[in-house]
Amino acid sequence: MIHRKSKFSDAAALGEAIAYARGEKKVPLVIRNAQWLDVFSGQFRSGDLAIANGMIVGVGDAYDGDQIIDAQGLHAVPGFIDSHVHVESSLMTPARFQEAALPSGTTTAIWDPHEIANVLGLEGIQWALDAVQDLLIDIHVMVPSCVPSTSPELEFESSGATLKAADIRTLVGHPRVLGLAEMMNFPGLLHRDADIMQKIMDYHALRLDGHCPGLSGKDLNAYAVAGIHSCHESTTLAEAREKLSKGIHVLIREGSCAKDADALLPLLDAYTSSTVGLCSDDRNPLDILEEGHISFIINKALESERHPADIFRAASFATARLYGLHDRGALAPGYLADICLIEAKGQTWAEGMRLKRVIKRGQLVDGETLQKQRSPLPQAGKRNLNLPKPQLKDFVIPASGSEAKARVIEVIPHQILTREAQATLKVVQGQIQADPARDILKIAVLERHHQRGYRFTALVQGFGIKSGAIATSINHDSHNIIAVGSSDELILAAIEDLIRIDGGIVVRSDKGTQAQLALPIAGLMTDSSPDAVAGSLRELKALARSIGCVLSEPFLQLSFLALPVIPSLKITDRGLIDVQACCKVPVVFESP
Amino acid sequence: MIHRKSKFSDAAALGEAIAYARGEKKVPLVIRNAQWLDVFSGQFRSGDLAIANGMIVGVGDAYDGDQIIDAQGLHAVPGFIDSHVHVESSLMTPARFQEAALPSGTTTAIWDPHEIANVLGLEGIQWALDAVQDLLIDIHVMVPSCVPSTSPELEFESSGATLKAADIRTLVGHPRVLGLAEMMNFPGLLHRDADIMQKIMDYHALRLDGHCPGLSGKDLNAYAVAGIHSCHESTTLAEAREKLSKGIHVLIREGSCAKDADALLPLLDAYTSSTVGLCSDDRNPLDILEEGHISFIINKALESERHPADIFRAASFATARLYGLHDRGALAPGYLADICLIEAKGQTWAEGMRLKRVIKRGQLVDGETLQKQRSPLPQAGKRNLNLPKPQLKDFVIPASGSEAKARVIEVIPHQILTREAQATLKVVQGQIQADPARDILKIAVLERHHQRGYRFTALVQGFGIKSGAIATSINHDSHNIIAVGSSDELILAAIEDLIRIDGGIVVRSDKGTQAQLALPIAGLMTDSSPDAVAGSLRELKALARSIGCVLSEPFLQLSFLALPVIPSLKITDRGLIDVQACCKVPVVFESP
Repeated sequence: MIHRKSKFSDAAALGEAIAYARGEKKVPLVIRNAQWLDVFSGQFRSGDLAIANGMIVGVGDAYDGDQIIDAQGLHAVPGFIDSHVHVESSLMTPARFQEAALPSGTTTAIWDPHEIANVLGLEGIQWALDAVQDLLIDIHVMVPSCVPSTSPELEFESSGATLKAADIRTLVGHPRVLGLAEMMNFPGLLHRDADIMQKIMDYHALRLDGHCPGLSGKDLNAYAVAGIHSCHESTTLAEAREKLSKGIHVLIREGSCAKDADALLPLLDAYTSSTVGLCSDDRNPLDILEEGHISFIINKALESERHPADIFRAASFATARLYGLHDRGALAPGYLADICLIEAKGQTWAEGMRLKRVIKRGQLVDGETLQKQRSPLPQAGKRNLNLPKPQLKDFVIPASGSEAKARVIEVIPHQILTREAQATLKVVQGQIQADPARDILKIAVLERHHQRGYRFTALVQGFGIKSGAIATSINHDSHNIIAVGSSDELILAAIEDLIRIDGGIVVRSDKGTQAQLALPIAGLMTDSSPDAVAGSLRELKALARSIGCVLSEPFLQLSFLALPVIPSLKITDRGLIDVQACCKVPVVFESP
Repeated sequence: MIHRKSKFSDAAALGEAIAYARGEKKVPLVIRNAQWLDVFSGQFRSGDLAIANGMIVGVGDAYDGDQIIDAQGLHAVPGFIDSHVHVESSLMTPARFQEAALPSGTTTAIWDPHEIANVLGLEGIQWALDAVQDLLIDIHVMVPSCVPSTSPELEFESSGATLKAADIRTLVGHPRVLGLAEMMNFPGLLHRDADIMQKIMDYHALRLDGHCPGLSGKDLNAYAVAGIHSCHESTTLAEAREKLSKGIHVLIREGSCAKDADALLPLLDAYTSSTVGLCSDDRNPLDILEEGHISFIINKALESERHPADIFRAASFATARLYGLHDRGALAPGYLADICLIEAKGQTWAEGMRLKRVIKRGQLVDGETLQKQRSPLPQAGKRNLNLPKPQLKDFVIPASGSEAKARVIEVIPHQILTREAQATLKVVQGQIQADPARDILKIAVLERHHQRGYRFTALVQGFGIKSGAIATSINHDSHNIIAVGSSDELILAAIEDLIRIDGGIVVRSDKGTQAQLALPIAGLMTDSSPDAVAGSLRELKALARSIGCVLSEPFLQLSFLALPVIPSLKITDRGLIDVQACCKVPVVFESP
């Protein structure tokens, strides 16, 4: 289960690599004149990088090559590793994700496919493993530990599938499986839930990823003692420092919605450049194309004047070692030829870096080759959206009297955390009235996997929508339908549009204008190109703005409002969830 | 094959650890008030260390304990790891080695048992694996790659056994085996010797240790491309830097004879504290008892004003990660409770540190417990010294004329390297005459494993012996008999003494005074206590001095004179070896 330096297929291949390294044979590719990063010492060095058969065979010495890249003025660093990503959040298949991420320097990604697992179960994970098989980018898989995100006994949410220890045990030993993915159910772990204990025992020889926002003190010790070795959910420097000191390696996250880099980058120094990784977690394709992927965090780090060696070491070496990927993360003989050629944008690194060339397994990355690669699609079967017909009455929030005090989910821009707000609202004919003027809107979640008919409506503040609705089948982690809008009628219309395209994202204005992105793979992903997806997203965002939405990431923020493991107040198809108290709470406060 | 954090025997044990960590149960042992090293950040921190079931269960928070160690004024660091040791060089069984090494803070050692493998073959390795089984110290094993040290086809030496790829393949998968031990035959690797290629292929998923003194440039790239990940043979800073930059992790060695710490310690900084290890390689029991083991290198590093965090991180964390020992090398929940409590000797660390207490798997290390542990002994069988009766004529170096020009092995104090010197010597009755007045002595090696009768005599300079002889059955790596002395008669007498005790070390003066240390296990080791062995060694050294020997490590230096993989001129039972030229050379130069 340990991935050592590039294994040779046979002794002849080993012998050939030795011959190339000794210069007995002319190597196919030489990068000349670059300043290359020696990650072992944290120093940039000069000399050639010689590449053959996808592997670096020599560094530092002069080599003769069939192809020479003159990298005068450039720096060479190991390809970036995304230490924790849900590829589903790119809205694309792994092959299409590759088209966006690989040219931005991400040569390896560690995927927790828990979105598709929540919809399709074990079959979804198996598809994920198949879908990454023949790609140029290397995508390794962590097996989802919490499907659904909360213990099924709590009845907090209806996912498409439930995965118990016995279901996922079969994946231990799969060559692409590095371990168990983020253990979100940390209360379950702390209280020794039997199924969680079993999952940990089954995966104990592999890596156990964490997810424990805000956990500290003895409970954090308990989480670590179980073998959890990482967490990507720190939002403050103090939280990150405590986690790291307890052996929970910190993965600094900069997603489209959850943005922790500014807070956590001060953690990065010469020591932590071997114990801290970088990750994107959830990053939409627009951001990947426009800002970059791991490269975006790297640029933030350079701009915040972290030392370049520290940054590039964390972005490659640290994560590779952390996950036992001993064949990468360094520019040295025997390592994969995953290389980024970069230059400083300005006179110093403080203005960030520009990627000049990406080399993956010795191949120059070009768009044409990538476009030829396609992930196989999951077997077509039943519809993605499989629910009783929605009706207006689904969106009624009953109350008595003429006004009522109600709980309101308060959205915090750029965070997946929410706050609980309270508001007094009008009651008409036994129904609470939303109040778009005060930005208090109705929000509904409808079970969509198994015709179970669960649906729930609550109140939300922060979207700013004045005259329209948004609906999507992306809805972490259970991926039911979630919709928010300025009126019950518009919410219903947006959901009906969504059902028509069998899942995806829909925005609808009160003038009947509509924008949509169909996501035929489990209602989460598409096989369309990054450009096409980005185009649709731009239209959707433009229409969302035109109906009054003030959030820069309306769809991601909407889709995280149903994740009952991230504090504070969340909505699922089963009700309103107080995450800290770990219980359902009513929308309307009882009259005193 | 990857050793993760302490595996729990079952879910109940996992649950208990969680309960201890949360403080639900009072923990058996708490270390209070120490400044403890957070290796992940390279910072010392305050707060309790809570220990239960041999494991650290909590750090940084206040715990209640059955036993409290007040460590006010002390620092706590992870137990030291010897990244490369031949336990045989302690002259003791692993259990007796433990008695000396564990109280000096070495809680884990990585053993290449190639000395006993050269005598007993696979059976010797199997004994090594058995002998470490039940000890408190953790000793992991690297499987010897080069037995004998040179390709058998070269006929450079007669070892007790020859191990081919097919012989050692069976040990892949053994839970204590971490990989393939030092690949000394780097010329064989560079020239793609088929058996070496096969060994590398067989062990490629594990760790491949190196040994490549002076190798650089493209040949070093070739060595690295094959997957070799470490080397403990650097003697200059430039050599070490180049190796590290090529992914050959540097193990800084301070043995009894080979002392590289002064030259290499400047390599150690915040970056390299995660990529550089410390090792003893060959360290005699006197030095372990009087100066320390890994603790001795640590003190040298402190005295040379390296940063304490860098030193203690390299001494534990770096090596643990390098060898996949993920259950140790840090003071954090889930890691083994291998802890050294130390204090600075002076006002600052620059005067070195003093060990106050060693804790191994949560147990306070005390001499009494250690003395109760014993390694099983190998099955007694044939004699260790198994050779035709030595005779005076064995030591004749024939030459013609009245004088002859001859090659002389020049010993360099504190190094296992030698130089080739030349001298013109008297010839009497067709025999070259040694010249003790000029410190040119005869040195002889006699095959002792299989009655093969090979024996060879040459000349050596540097011992300074005036009137006596030294003989030993420790003689790297083939472990034949080697003897040096001021006359043929005294050499013979010393060898006869050695045969009488069936192996060990003997010093004999011309007055008939004799000192000896019997090593009944393969002629290499004894089950006697460290104090007893140290006592014998002191007597042997005193007598060696009294016969004129000027070397501070006469026995180790003598025993390395037959190792034909360390430059320049060496002697084996088969002849005089020019290591760089890789051929046998005559003692006497042909007359022109």
